[in-house]
This record gives sequence, C-alpha cells and structure tokens, in this order.
Amino acid sequence: MTKLEVALGDRSYPIMIGSGLLEQTGLINPYVHGRRALVVTNEVVAPLYLQRLLGSLEGIACDHIILPDGEHTKSLQTLNSIFDKLLQERHERSTTLIALGGGVIGDLTGFAAATYQRGVNFVQVPTTLLAQVDSSVGGKTGVNHPLGKNMIGAFYQPQCVIADTDVLATLPERELKSGIAEVIKYGLIDNLAFFEWLEQNIEGLVAGDPRLLAEAIRVSCEEKARIVAADEKEGGVRALLNLGHTFGHAIETAMGYGTWLHGEAVATGMVLAADLSQRMGWLDLASAERAKALLQRAGLPVCPPAEMKADDFLRLMAVDKKVMAGKIRFILLRGLGKAVIESAIDADKLRQTLEANEELCQG
Amino acid sequence: MTKLEVALGDRSYPIMIGSGLLEQTGLINPYVHGRRALVVTNEVVAPLYLQRLLGSLEGIACDHIILPDGEHTKSLQTLNSIFDKLLQERHERSTTLIALGGGVIGDLTGFAAATYQRGVNFVQVPTTLLAQVDSSVGGKTGVNHPLGKNMIGAFYQPQCVIADTDVLATLPERELKSGIAEVIKYGLIDNLAFFEWLEQNIEGLVAGDPRLLAEAIRVSCEEKARIVAADEKEGGVRALLNLGHTFGHAIETAMGYGTWLHGEAVATGMVLAADLSQRMGWLDLASAERAKALLQRAGLPVCPPAEMKADDFLRLMAVDKKVMAGKIRFILLRGLGKAVIESAIDADKLRQTLEANEELCQG
Repeated sequence: MTKLEVALGDRSYPIMIGSGLLEQTGLINPYVHGRRALVVTNEVVAPLYLQRLLGSLEGIACDHIILPDGEHTKSLQTLNSIFDKLLQERHERSTTLIALGGGVIGDLTGFAAATYQRGVNFVQVPTTLLAQVDSSVGGKTGVNHPLGKNMIGAFYQPQCVIADTDVLATLPERELKSGIAEVIKYGLIDNLAFFEWLEQNIEGLVAGDPRLLAEAIRVSCEEKARIVAADEKEGGVRALLNLGHTFGHAIETAMGYGTWLHGEAVATGMVLAADLSQRMGWLDLASAERAKALLQRAGLPVCPPAEMKADDFLRLMAVDKKVMAGKIRFILLRGLGKAVIESAIDADKLRQTLEANEELCQG
Repeated sequence: MTKLEVALGDRSYPIMIGSGLLEQTGLINPYVHGRRALVVTNEVVAPLYLQRLLGSLEGIACDHIILPDGEHTKSLQTLNSIFDKLLQERHERSTTLIALGGGVIGDLTGFAAATYQRGVNFVQVPTTLLAQVDSSVGGKTGVNHPLGKNMIGAFYQPQCVIADTDVLATLPERELKSGIAEVIKYGLIDNLAFFEWLEQNIEGLVAGDPRLLAEAIRVSCEEKARIVAADEKEGGVRALLNLGHTFGHAIETAMGYGTWLHGEAVATGMVLAADLSQRMGWLDLASAERAKALLQRAGLPVCPPAEMKADDFLRLMAVDKKVMAGKIRFILLRGLGKAVIESAIDADKLRQTLEANEELCQG
C-alpha cells in the first residue's frame, strides 16, 4: 500500500492506494470518529462492492443508501434524499458519511457531509479511475443546477481517501480510458518524465495492468495533492488542473452530460489547448502532435463532435470581446509538462484552432 | 456609529451599529468585492427598506429577490430559488449576497452564499433585534428540513454586519420583546453588570428607546463576538449561547414553529434552566427569581404552554436513560452571569423542574 498526504494544516489527510484495501478490516475505522456511518453508493457499485466495504467496517453501525447511477443523481433533490435518510435514522453530528462510487457519488456525498448539521466527517472510497486520480482528492464537492454544472457546492476535505486498485477490474473500458485522460493531464501540466513514462506504458494501462495502474494513480495523486496543498480554494495555481476543461465543458454541455464522458471531453479539450498553444507560438508542432498521439493511443477521442462548429464552442465558452478582455482563463502549454494560466488569448487564433480542427476531423 | 470586530483571523469582520446606517452611501461598498450583488429580502421588509438600501449601494449593479415572510421560507426549496435567480442573472463567483431581513433571511442567504459556486461574499443587514444581537453574528447559516430545524447548513462568516437601529422603529412589539430575550441571555451567561443595567432599563428598552437599544445591541454583539472568536464551530464554550434553548426548542417544536416566537420560547427556557440550576443546588432561589422577574418585566412568557406536560418536554428533548449518560448538554447557571455547560443532569430534578413549573403556571 502507498500512503500519500494532502498537506492542508489541520485539514490534512491521507490517500491510501493499493490492492485489497476495500476488504482490509479496520483500515477506515480510525477515520470514522463516531460509532455510526452512512455509506452512500449507487445501483451499479452496490452489488459489486457494498458488502465488501461494510464487512471491513467492524464495530461501526453502518446504514447505507443506494442511489441511481448517472450525472442526474448529482442534484439538490438527491442531496435531500441523503438528508432524509440521515434524519430518519437519527444520525447525529458525530456521524461519518462514506462515499463509495465514482465522481458523482463522491461530489454529492462530500457536499452532504459539508452541510449536514453544518458539517460531519466523510471518507472517500472512489471506485472509478477518474475519481481515484482526480475528483476524490482536493475537497471540491457539490451538485449541479439545471442552469449549470457544479454551481452549488463547498470546499470540504475528507478524512481520508481509499483508492483500491482492485475495483478497476470491473470498470467498463470506456470509463477506464476516461480516467486515463486525467492521468495524461498531470503529465502535460508539469511532469514531463511522467508523460514519457505514459508514452512507454500506455497500452498496458489501457489493458488494465494493475501494477501500471497503481503507479499511474500514485503519481497522479501526488501531483494533485501537491497542487491542492499549494492552493486549496483555486485562487491561483489550482486552475492548472483545468487543462482541457474549458473546451471540454463546452463539449459536455453541447452534447448533453453523459453522452461524452468527462475524460473524453477533456482529452479532446487538451488537443485543442495544445493546438491553440502552438498557434500562440508557445508550443512546437512536434510537442502538440506528441500530446495528441498519446491521447489517441489511449483510445480517447481527439476530434470535437461533428455536430459542433466553432461558433458553438465560442458561444458555450461565453467568449465575446468583453470576456476576452481578461475574464476567461485558458490553461495552455508552454511545453510538454509546462502548463500556464493565460487570460490574454488572441480571439482570432482561438477561432483558427476551432476551425482547423473541425476541418481536419471532417476531412 | 459603533464598530466592533469579530476576531477570526483571515475571516475577521466588523459589526457596525448605529442610526441611519442603511442610507449611508458607500458604507457597504468596501465589503462588496465585485461589481455585482444580489439583495435577498422578504415581502415585509422590502416595502420598508429595500429602496433605502439599494440607494446606498452606489456603483454596484444590484439585483434583488423578495421571498415570502416566515420560518417556512428557510427551506431547500427557497434556497434553490435564490440559485435560480443568481444563475438566470449570470452572477459569477465574484458576486456578493446581501441579506436584508431577520434571522430567516440571514440564515438562508448566508447558506446560499456559502454554497453558490462553492462560496461567494456576503453581507448581513439584520432588520430585527433578534437578528442584530444574535443570528447575524457568528456565521451559523442554514435551512430547515421537515425532520428538523437547522439540520442543513454551514459555518460561513459574512464580510460585515450592518445593524441600523432605526429599523427597529417599525418592528412589531412582540418581535422586539423576542429580541430582548436574547439580550437578557447575554447578561445571564457571563455579564452580571449588564444584567443589572438591564434591570434598570428594561421598561425603556421594551418601549423602544433608541439610545438604550443601541447600548443593548452593542454589549450583546460584544459578548457574541467574543464567544464566537473563542470557539467558531461550537466545539466548547460557544454552547453557552444555547442557554434556554434546549427547553425552548422543545416548545417551538411542540407548538409548531412561529406559534411561539424564538425569543419567547428561549425566555421560558431560561426560566426552566434557572429553576433546574436552583434544584441542582447551584443557583440560589433569589437569583432564579431575579432572572424570572426581569424576563417578566420585558413582557416575555415565563410559563411553558399549557398544552405541554413534563413528558412532552422529555420526549422532545430526546431525554432517555442513555442520553442522560452524557449526550445532552444543558446550559445551566452557577450564578447570575455564570453559565456552565453540564452533561451530568439528575433526571429526577429535571422532571421536578418541569412538573413544578407546570403546576405553578396552571395553578
């Protein structure tokens, strides 16, 4: 087992990564401060892992709630159903919420923990690669609003994160690849050596090699922990983690959430970010091609959806003259492993990037 | 104008108390960090004070939302209507929420601010005495759940609190008295000199003398600011502020919220707490009578509702043998101005207090 620390003063917590953690009796117990817990999970994960987790929580009186699968579960309505359960079962301020699932379950449960009786403990047990390398670490919690994704939420850190690599064996291949997009992101942001390691091992990762996945999760969590420790509430450097996300969110919104998986949209978004970086004169063409090639080898989409024109992107990214004056921040590359935050983007170059990729992909 | 500081490190903020603050142009501006704000108020307060407040916010683009009056407004549903408004009007993370109203508006708006886009600035402009001396200070925000009051919320501090004493002129007398109950509470908790000042000035306060009210608000806010600074998240000493509240909540729940005003229930609760303190041998009879007499002179109820029997109280306070083992904390008095937190309460004495007061009041 590898144990990493997210260093946030009195809100510091460990990330434990390894095989067989879910069934390791007593591993989570020290992080459950009271005698009771509520496990929040969904209908896909529950049949696979709920009993295994409950079995390991010896001595803790556990209730559980099984929610529907999918992004629509991340709503105020579902949040309220967690509160219903907590209050019906008379959970007090000393209870602990345990999130067993992917990003939707983690974000929702974390926000429930942040707001139930003004804050109770919580533990993250991410069961997708995406959640293990990204959403379970760093304390961003929340739900969607019909008018915007992640519009309601809180920064609220867990007591610990348990990333059991065994659970990835049951993860659908498309979701595994979606997680690999975020893994590649860490290489592009500030770790050229990791990017090169990924170039050497990408086929093994996509094939689900447990040893390679464990190593990729370890490095990714180290990167994320370091960046979050430096800037918990995204006042500055944490925005680097949004590489590919401005374009990616536009794709997710245009296509309807869930049509493209988050990692798929981010993969294409990173291709566009690299292309724009190259047009800005900051990244050489060979490096932009290398980034694209790695994503392609991971089986990730590198072309925007055929339905989306440049104007669709610009509209969804709320790009107009006024915004270009400094409101939208793009994360671009000044080299592989050298991401930067940029507000002063040339609107013409942005349009060129979108139109060139549209043409390239249709052509 | 009096300016007090709630000392909470980088979350410190001022409380400004005085006459004419609401129309003082530019007073709030330094606490609105962006260029936009949303004023949240209700249908009773809006006709009286909304235009006055908006007029003082020169240079800030203000939207407003007017909610129904009453405790039922403090719900997840109404919270969502604030998010609807913020998103429809495209408020960004740099916006400021301004709560113009009593405790319901303040708690609800504070929670909206805590959770909109994971936290935006907010400003408290309390318009009831209760909100000025209690709920607007200290960062407790939240909404009710059908299964429990204040069950969903967050600790989230405002940028500043503006207590304009002029607004109390339009406050219904019953609500003024309800606020005075919380003022008396501060005297009982740890300020005998203030308690004695209240004994000398209670009739003037109830009559709404602005000079006396300003002084009472100043001392009350000083007390609250000091206690909150010592214990922001109620790990210890902050619980003293719950004097009278364990009994009081039972009354509010039994009678239905709003039937008894919060301060009325707390007044009777403090009489019961003093009685229990006396039966525990901690408070002399004369002091218990003095506390009761002051509350009575303030026109506050000192008798539990005729409908409530001792068993009703015990059930609603969730008092059973197991809980008595240390789970419920009572705030009791070891003298006037000497409140203490006690878990080891004699169940028989508690029943005696309830039965004796029932008999006394019906007799």
